[in-house]
Amino acid sequence: MNRLDNLEDLFVHELHDLYSAEQQIIAALPKMANAATSSDLREAFEKHLRQTRNHVARLDEIFSSMNVSGNGHECRGMKGLIEEGEQVMKMDGNASVKDAALIAAAQRVEHYEIAGYGAARTYAKELNHDDAADLLQETLDEEGATDKKLTKLAEGGLLATGINEQASRM
Amino acid sequence: MNRLDNLEDLFVHELHDLYSAEQQIIAALPKMANAATSSDLREAFEKHLRQTRNHVARLDEIFSSMNVSGNGHECRGMKGLIEEGEQVMKMDGNASVKDAALIAAAQRVEHYEIAGYGAARTYAKELNHDDAADLLQETLDEEGATDKKLTKLAEGGLLATGINEQASRM
Repeated sequence: MNRLDNLEDLFVHELHDLYSAEQQIIAALPKMANAATSSDLREAFEKHLRQTRNHVARLDEIFSSMNVSGNGHECRGMKGLIEEGEQVMKMDGNASVKDAALIAAAQRVEHYEIAGYGAARTYAKELNHDDAADLLQETLDEEGATDKKLTKLAEGGLLATGINEQASRM
Repeated sequence: MNRLDNLEDLFVHELHDLYSAEQQIIAALPKMANAATSSDLREAFEKHLRQTRNHVARLDEIFSSMNVSGNGHECRGMKGLIEEGEQVMKMDGNASVKDAALIAAAQRVEHYEIAGYGAARTYAKELNHDDAADLLQETLDEEGATDKKLTKLAEGGLLATGINEQASRM
């Protein structure tokens, strides 16, 4: 287990955690997209898969600039969140309700990343790693936008897409 | 495994998940408080433990009004997040850096709850469970405030408390 002797250690630890989290998300998102019934939701998951590959590329760029490897750590938090998403996918029921449940599972994943990238960006700023801070902020903004998009699909947009509306009428 | 035939099913599923999450947090917070070196951080964890007991009481009130039991589900997402916090507690290093790492772990927990309570509150509103929606909103507000307090400890307040500042000087 690595040591946390200084903020640079913690920054690298946080980046490793996010790197593992992103890899797990890349493996999970195609299953989430397949499980979605609403075409809007499926497209949102597919778009986020493309974004997530770019998030990994940004982390690769940061690791490369720091001359450290990105691999070797397993993010336990994301493992649990993805297991939870898999539980939802296995549940039987109404397609629209299951879509709403998939959204709730995906928003937990987004919020994990918002917390993680927020911390990493703060450490990067403290350490004057300005280029890394900018890259992490870009990803943080995209995670926030994805979370809002999912809320819109479940909440505001549901009147149009019927994701929750149908469910509440049953 | 329960079915998701309608939004009421999903609402109960979400409440069960949060109930299990809160129980796990109640078990974890005293360890987090013990592991914290900064007295401000220790107090923040202790305060949040008192709040969390109240969040459980609110969920009990909702379950009681719906005539359903709160137990029987294990929140896998929170299990992973808490395992991650335990990994951090076991790491060796500088006390201030470890405090910053504890904050990052705790903010992942807060964000899980922000996502979960946000979804549950939305379902309650859709289902016209107004009293439940109000109770869930109160908890959601407290989770958001705790997250902000932790950010302040790590970010703004760190100049005073030295939580991250000392770390970046090492």
